[in-house]
Amino acid sequence: MEKEELELFNQKQEMYRHSMSHILAKAVKQLYPNVKLAIGPAIDNGFYYDFDLVTITPDDFSKIEDKMREIINKNEDFTRLEVSKQQALELFKDEPYKTELINELPENETISVYKTGDDFMDLCRGPHVENTKYLRGFSFKINRASGAYWRGSEKNKMLTRIYVYGFLNKDDLKAYIHQMEEALKRDHNKLGRELGLFTTVDYIGQGLPILLPKGARIVQLLQRFVEDEEQRRGWLLTKTPFMAKSDLYKISGHWDHYKDGMFVLGDENKDKEVFALRPMTCPFQYQAYLNQARSYKDLPLRYNETSTLFRNEESGEMHGLIRVRQFTISEGHLMCTPEQLEEEFKNCLELAIYMLKTLGLYEDASYRFSQWDPNNRAKYIGTVEQWDEAQGIMEKILNKLEIPYKVGVGEAAFYGPKLDIQIKNVWGKEDTLITIQIDQLLAEKFGMEYTDRDGVKKRPYIIHRTSIGCYERTLAYLIEKYAGAFPVWLSPTQVKVITVSENNDNYAKEIQSKLQLSGVRVECDLDNESVGKKIRNAVLEKTPYILVLGDKEMAEGSVAVRVRGSKDTVSMSYAEFEKLLKEKIDSKSLVL
Amino acid sequence: MEKEELELFNQKQEMYRHSMSHILAKAVKQLYPNVKLAIGPAIDNGFYYDFDLVTITPDDFSKIEDKMREIINKNEDFTRLEVSKQQALELFKDEPYKTELINELPENETISVYKTGDDFMDLCRGPHVENTKYLRGFSFKINRASGAYWRGSEKNKMLTRIYVYGFLNKDDLKAYIHQMEEALKRDHNKLGRELGLFTTVDYIGQGLPILLPKGARIVQLLQRFVEDEEQRRGWLLTKTPFMAKSDLYKISGHWDHYKDGMFVLGDENKDKEVFALRPMTCPFQYQAYLNQARSYKDLPLRYNETSTLFRNEESGEMHGLIRVRQFTISEGHLMCTPEQLEEEFKNCLELAIYMLKTLGLYEDASYRFSQWDPNNRAKYIGTVEQWDEAQGIMEKILNKLEIPYKVGVGEAAFYGPKLDIQIKNVWGKEDTLITIQIDQLLAEKFGMEYTDRDGVKKRPYIIHRTSIGCYERTLAYLIEKYAGAFPVWLSPTQVKVITVSENNDNYAKEIQSKLQLSGVRVECDLDNESVGKKIRNAVLEKTPYILVLGDKEMAEGSVAVRVRGSKDTVSMSYAEFEKLLKEKIDSKSLVL
Repeated sequence: MEKEELELFNQKQEMYRHSMSHILAKAVKQLYPNVKLAIGPAIDNGFYYDFDLVTITPDDFSKIEDKMREIINKNEDFTRLEVSKQQALELFKDEPYKTELINELPENETISVYKTGDDFMDLCRGPHVENTKYLRGFSFKINRASGAYWRGSEKNKMLTRIYVYGFLNKDDLKAYIHQMEEALKRDHNKLGRELGLFTTVDYIGQGLPILLPKGARIVQLLQRFVEDEEQRRGWLLTKTPFMAKSDLYKISGHWDHYKDGMFVLGDENKDKEVFALRPMTCPFQYQAYLNQARSYKDLPLRYNETSTLFRNEESGEMHGLIRVRQFTISEGHLMCTPEQLEEEFKNCLELAIYMLKTLGLYEDASYRFSQWDPNNRAKYIGTVEQWDEAQGIMEKILNKLEIPYKVGVGEAAFYGPKLDIQIKNVWGKEDTLITIQIDQLLAEKFGMEYTDRDGVKKRPYIIHRTSIGCYERTLAYLIEKYAGAFPVWLSPTQVKVITVSENNDNYAKEIQSKLQLSGVRVECDLDNESVGKKIRNAVLEKTPYILVLGDKEMAEGSVAVRVRGSKDTVSMSYAEFEKLLKEKIDSKSLVL
Repeated sequence: MEKEELELFNQKQEMYRHSMSHILAKAVKQLYPNVKLAIGPAIDNGFYYDFDLVTITPDDFSKIEDKMREIINKNEDFTRLEVSKQQALELFKDEPYKTELINELPENETISVYKTGDDFMDLCRGPHVENTKYLRGFSFKINRASGAYWRGSEKNKMLTRIYVYGFLNKDDLKAYIHQMEEALKRDHNKLGRELGLFTTVDYIGQGLPILLPKGARIVQLLQRFVEDEEQRRGWLLTKTPFMAKSDLYKISGHWDHYKDGMFVLGDENKDKEVFALRPMTCPFQYQAYLNQARSYKDLPLRYNETSTLFRNEESGEMHGLIRVRQFTISEGHLMCTPEQLEEEFKNCLELAIYMLKTLGLYEDASYRFSQWDPNNRAKYIGTVEQWDEAQGIMEKILNKLEIPYKVGVGEAAFYGPKLDIQIKNVWGKEDTLITIQIDQLLAEKFGMEYTDRDGVKKRPYIIHRTSIGCYERTLAYLIEKYAGAFPVWLSPTQVKVITVSENNDNYAKEIQSKLQLSGVRVECDLDNESVGKKIRNAVLEKTPYILVLGDKEMAEGSVAVRVRGSKDTVSMSYAEFEKLLKEKIDSKSLVL
């Protein structure tokens, strides 16, 4: 479709989706006369509606769908009425959520209401189709029912939200459902649990995932890889505390600008000392800089840390390993002179790109230049001039490096602009994986300085940066990217040794020992099961290399290798296999 | 001295020390008539006294010592009076702290009071010397004045405590002072800061040390060493969250038995969810076990974690890196059948001993079998029978392994007995470095079970253990053990390259690159200073190997090596040096 045509199509589809949400509400109201109506907008893949006083299970879906079709087939008119606030309150006097919404409207507002047939009415701006007959060709399918707080706030009552996929074209619905089924197969929140990478436990809490041995191994490998690469590039490791007295956060500005996002320990009105868990590493790592007097000769000073942070996310916002309350991140802070800023920014970006490429995530990433929102200045520290300067510097660097970014207004940190490297999960939701930030403000707050060549004390620029970002989130994207079939260097188990019969157990153990000795993570399956069953199990675990050892292999000192993704078995000497395997591991190869 | 003779000597020395504390109090009272007296006992190395309403600085010490000698030289009698509670209250009506103590005595108690001369009186059980003339030969020296809470509680007023070294023999005092001076040179809390290993910052808080790059590097090396060795021995790494809802701690028993030691987030009377930072890893790591059904074939299951813990220590208890509020520890939990318990306990002990030997701390360690206190049962979970059984099992294992332990009554964990490996700091204070515990109780609380060979579901035994213990504490002991001159594999900088003149800069950089390429941590000192000065700096930093590079070395492709602790320089080819160095590093040699 042409662009203009596409826009018209989208407008039409949205109107149909919105009309369908009224049909959904009418159907539910007919089936469950006691329900109270909240709201029901069109969304990207269809529409939803929130109801109170009803519990819906998947068993109810077809009944509701049938009722919706029944209403559509009655060819009922959508009629627009315009009423006063008083009249609206009267019309919806039995609907407390509608009443709450009406009460918030200005006194003299003319309020539009849409009727569907004679027996259903909803508060609505419109527009809608004129008659339900136009909805006959519309393809829809109830996707799921889930809890949702009224107006999205935990403080309010939990309602029941019914999500419906809905498309003008039948093929679009079919394609979308297929796409969702595929996404579900890769969804780290499902697959990561099935593969034994992580779990969560109700009595520990939401957003506090437990990395099981296989998941923890991958994160350990990633962390060592990142720390070693950072060391090689001149970064100095620190290990700083995860909490501090409120005093620190008052200096940094977190207390005024970030307190809601922090876990606070103690009560300022009661306790002598109040602590908070850190949401960022910055003010902690600065202490390494502040530990002695600094000269221009010491700069740039680059500090890295495998840093655990805590953020008090709302319950509704948490998602698997992607949005959590505690996470560990490759944090770094670099202090430099103004002359060094551009080069060091570039180095940070190069490191990030190197990491993304090594993990195979580079092609999936995009850039966002996150700026402040000058219309919401209370969110930030610093003056307009300081923000203009910092954003100007960053813009210059980004343009010089030809970074194809989009701008995110209001997405800056409270102390400065950011270059965010964004990535989408299987469901299309975008989050930040890596960030590189320029900060002129915190050095002043913490009294950080260096003696320049001319003997004058000056403030360093600070670059805040991550090199791979949050390890939990990275693990999530890796699970989704590879559908759990990780590159061999990251695979928790790299080789699975399978025996044909008990005869071959000793040979299998010998092969296992040899591989272990050369640093390979290898498991033996000596169970008294058929070879076919044992291979199927190893395939389900997505093991990169399966070695099948029978009498022939034992006699030859060879191994029969089955590479993940292939159904063939290739015979080779043990030495050949070890060489091939080590090459793939050492080069961090993305393919087997 | 014979044992009996020694005991008599010690009793006498304690009486003299205690008498001297009265002399101290009398002297201070004469010099500062407004002071209020708290208490003043004899201690291991002399005595102290706590005063209110006075500030004492080191400048005041000789004045107080002179006044004490003046009193001693007056040959005043120590006279014992016995008075009623009423009379005692009258005698000490101007001393609020004495009054508080007297008020707590039973009504009919006869109270003893000691007079020194006619103008000083103290509430005291005695005994004392009969006359101050006996104290003339007693050697003493005021050591320091510091703050101390009345009755040791933070809730009370901070008093001024004057510590005095005091010995019957002059030589003992001299030897003790020398020993203290030596200890001070090794004191990690002083030396660790001087060497740039760690720091603390007031506005972050006490007990929250910041590991600077050199200290963080050592901890990183230790952690990787421990994780790798554990992996080699069949332990499975986990990474579990640092906090949980109170629900978890209510199941584990921490909420009832350990809440005072925990940092709690939120208020149970107000908040929907209350969290606490974890003081132990146990209930978190159990979730890995609980993640799937277990059979006897899965056991033993060994989980390790480089685990960060938080304990809400009182301000007065914190010390450098040894007693802190946040620390990271090599935690592990092992689930096994009763038949496996002894062998697995032995394996844990072997791992701990291997670690201690590798670090050179083995000779300094001693064993404590930490048992419960049957007279304080509220501190523990479980029945008398369960404790008898668990302690009986541990005793049998320890005796079989011929572990030379002392018994620590009341030192058990709330859930079971412990074998603690104890170590002393330079000041003689003993703490636990490593612990291995047997637990029969928590498996029940968390519903942990396995299906045995006979198809019956049974509870596993759990061993809680550390393999090197807390990394901050280990670093502290290493600093004190080696006075900062670490074994080369742990040295933050392993080689320092020093140039004779600018001529040799390129050669130095070439040597640095070669060493870096083979994984050595190497720094170059190309400063425009004399060779002597540059060597002195490197010696102060306790660098294991100094390479001095001049024209001769450059021409020959050789290096002049100065090994730490030696003043000689030995010439050798670069290849020879690299071979020697790598051997020392790879073997984790304790000597250069």
